[in-house]
Amino acid sequence: MAPIGNMTEVPKKQYLGRHILAEFFECDPNVLNNPELVEKYMLEAALECGATVVNKCFHLFMPHGVSGVVIISESHLAIHTWPEYGYAAVDLFTCGEQCDPKVSYEFLKEKFNSKDAKYSQLNRGLMDFSSNNIQHNSFSLSESF
Amino acid sequence: MAPIGNMTEVPKKQYLGRHILAEFFECDPNVLNNPELVEKYMLEAALECGATVVNKCFHLFMPHGVSGVVIISESHLAIHTWPEYGYAAVDLFTCGEQCDPKVSYEFLKEKFNSKDAKYSQLNRGLMDFSSNNIQHNSFSLSESF
Repeated sequence: MAPIGNMTEVPKKQYLGRHILAEFFECDPNVLNNPELVEKYMLEAALECGATVVNKCFHLFMPHGVSGVVIISESHLAIHTWPEYGYAAVDLFTCGEQCDPKVSYEFLKEKFNSKDAKYSQLNRGLMDFSSNNIQHNSFSLSESF
Repeated sequence: MAPIGNMTEVPKKQYLGRHILAEFFECDPNVLNNPELVEKYMLEAALECGATVVNKCFHLFMPHGVSGVVIISESHLAIHTWPEYGYAAVDLFTCGEQCDPKVSYEFLKEKFNSKDAKYSQLNRGLMDFSSNNIQHNSFSLSESF
């Protein structure tokens, strides 16, 4: 058996971005239909995970529903709400190691008062660190709950 | 064998949104690092699939890379480029039946001159049409290439 010191080290970062697809069910519909609150929580969610906000745009639809995106130095957060179903589809895409999109997920779950939330975390832009090239693979599913 | 007329009809729409996660490899790096061109192509991609643009925000990073989002009445298109790897991660999220995100995918693949492109199409916000309630399921993978 080879000593531990001889084992091949697993690279710490094997992808360019982490992308959480979150499904928030049974949310407070009054929050989901309030564009000011949705924007405030999305901006706070970016800051909570350590991201740097560079731009944002939000839109209130008639008769209901909010869409919005926060561009961060580390990629973006996006949301679409269906207050009539108490449902929000949220994407949390971050690059680098300093931001953890899971922190934003937990923050929004609480702020939307979601009684049932699910997420899947995908890795985007898979890297081959042995050649420093990007692999031509589709995303990989790293975690699902 | 029951006559066809007695067969249970499959609902045409069983989800609120279609979400294509696209990985564009071997793109033209000069396009991927040009914020005006990336913005122009993303806006055109929205129009090509029949979407209505309601807002947009784009950002050029130093030393390279562009992030941008186009909010459409039918959800959003998002992009993050890594010109140094000839790679772009693109999300095409549309609601309703009138827009097909696959049209935007094919359009961008050509404009970015991607020699190798992959996509996965997910369904978000799965609906139970028998009760008109939203199902508490994570997304489903409908198509992958």
